[in-house]
Amino acid sequence: VCVLIVSEPVAEQCVTFDEVEAAVREIFLALHAGQARVFEVVRATGAHKTTGFGVKSAVNLRTGRFSAKVGSYAPDNARRGLPAHTSTILVFDTATGAPVAMIGAGRLNGMRTAAANALAARLLAAPSSRVLGVLGTGHQAAFEAWAVCRVRPIERILCWARTSQSVESFATEVKAHTGIRPEFAECEQVARAADILATVTPSTRALVRREWVRPGTHIAAMGADAAGKQELDVELVRDSRVFVDRAEQAAVIGESQHAVRAGYLTVEDLQTRTLGALLAGAVQGRERADQITVFDSSGIALQDLAVAELVIERAAKRADVVRTTVSLLET
Amino acid sequence: VCVLIVSEPVAEQCVTFDEVEAAVREIFLALHAGQARVFEVVRATGAHKTTGFGVKSAVNLRTGRFSAKVGSYAPDNARRGLPAHTSTILVFDTATGAPVAMIGAGRLNGMRTAAANALAARLLAAPSSRVLGVLGTGHQAAFEAWAVCRVRPIERILCWARTSQSVESFATEVKAHTGIRPEFAECEQVARAADILATVTPSTRALVRREWVRPGTHIAAMGADAAGKQELDVELVRDSRVFVDRAEQAAVIGESQHAVRAGYLTVEDLQTRTLGALLAGAVQGRERADQITVFDSSGIALQDLAVAELVIERAAKRADVVRTTVSLLET
Repeated sequence: VCVLIVSEPVAEQCVTFDEVEAAVREIFLALHAGQARVFEVVRATGAHKTTGFGVKSAVNLRTGRFSAKVGSYAPDNARRGLPAHTSTILVFDTATGAPVAMIGAGRLNGMRTAAANALAARLLAAPSSRVLGVLGTGHQAAFEAWAVCRVRPIERILCWARTSQSVESFATEVKAHTGIRPEFAECEQVARAADILATVTPSTRALVRREWVRPGTHIAAMGADAAGKQELDVELVRDSRVFVDRAEQAAVIGESQHAVRAGYLTVEDLQTRTLGALLAGAVQGRERADQITVFDSSGIALQDLAVAELVIERAAKRADVVRTTVSLLET
Repeated sequence: VCVLIVSEPVAEQCVTFDEVEAAVREIFLALHAGQARVFEVVRATGAHKTTGFGVKSAVNLRTGRFSAKVGSYAPDNARRGLPAHTSTILVFDTATGAPVAMIGAGRLNGMRTAAANALAARLLAAPSSRVLGVLGTGHQAAFEAWAVCRVRPIERILCWARTSQSVESFATEVKAHTGIRPEFAECEQVARAADILATVTPSTRALVRREWVRPGTHIAAMGADAAGKQELDVELVRDSRVFVDRAEQAAVIGESQHAVRAGYLTVEDLQTRTLGALLAGAVQGRERADQITVFDSSGIALQDLAVAELVIERAAKRADVVRTTVSLLET
């Protein structure tokens, strides 16, 4: 027994988007069935003047694996030509506590996040959705556009960003993955035109006004993942049918935090409207064609573990992976 | 730039107890000076029927390094002849978020914990302390006996354990490190005889009664590190001068949790009585020769980071360390 050290480029070669989506689906079903658990998210603020770290941990009781992911966000990296986000996942065997793998998961993180969006859009977005609106053009936004285009017959992609910094690489990546060249417009125009609206910004104030959103729109609220983050008017959330990845987390660090604070939603409401319950058919999705639906995703540690388990299975057969020992349990 | 993977045996060879104690001293001073931060402890319960995991993270603002340690406790490992505890520390550069090292830190964890005990005993225990009492004979207990013997003229070691399981290996290790063969006795006898009493058990009820402890005794309360754990009568804590590694943590998962709940101590009291403040000379230690002092240690993430930084410095010069890349930031 030894520990696999899988670098980011190798990890990415180990999986396809289809496989990631299937693994993420399974883990949300396991969570719904009580066969997986998610622990508290640690937000390490004040670690550096601009860089932030987060730690997310979870266990899959079906496979007996525990994971802890350290994610970092260093916006200054862009100036150095480096990615702003990194994700490093450690996986452990719950029978002995032995470390099993360390995986560079920067791009996998983008895929596991977008996979949840795709799963929710399959069940919530109008089948005829043709126009995708994307707010934000960072690293994650391209993954979200790709994910939605896989599950709905999108013909146009409209997008908006606060700064022009990442617009070029976003356009290139979206074109490469979806065949559609995104068009840039004002935030209001994007929101008004969208059949599906993906919000993928680090905003701390509402960007999307209630009156901009047409009946029947599906919103993938992917940006808010910390206390204080917000992309949607609280009235927009109030008037929508909201689903979450995990109720306890969404109520504190997700887009739902503001509606919960305003008294429009409770944690108990959200506990019945999880992606797991939706996938299991335990709760109704969209109730009417003119209803606005929201999928509030702050990203849960089980998505990391699901992808990591896929990578471990594939990487075990590869030659370009480092095998070593770390604890006394492997030696 | 690459990531160092340092296995447990190599990591242990990189440092001495003196160096660990000096590094732990520096980091407690940095915490006191506001130049280091500790984040919430994650206790992953229900991950397995017997195995538990914990995640502790911290940042050293002086060096620009962030760490997350995953610790595991799998009591069933003993039957397989494997260590019950493992610790794996990941270290990151706060400027870019890049991973710097993964370190197998099982034995280092024992040393970093005992180093805080030694630092506190230097400042709190009576200089003439001759008899050390140890409750518990697990993995950590031997480190604690070793640490105390380094800082006080201990001549006798009395110990007690609930089960005889680890008694032999404890006796062998203590003899090897201190030259003293520990004598076994009842819990009460050990407590009554001790000038310094180290409690190192996983107990969830008080083991040491108020009336057993002589005036002037110093107690190193090392066992309680989770909600519900307890080793000392709450009246014993009430009647003692209590110091902590970190107030916010001790009040929730340390021995102090019970005195805080009973109203005998507040978090604000404890905030003035930290090991950092004691080391900086900002608070008086023992006030009278007949006072009972308690050092309540639940173990903080900065101790892990301090030791990890030492290991990184040394390991960088060694040949028996794996150097690889994990994220896109090192490639």
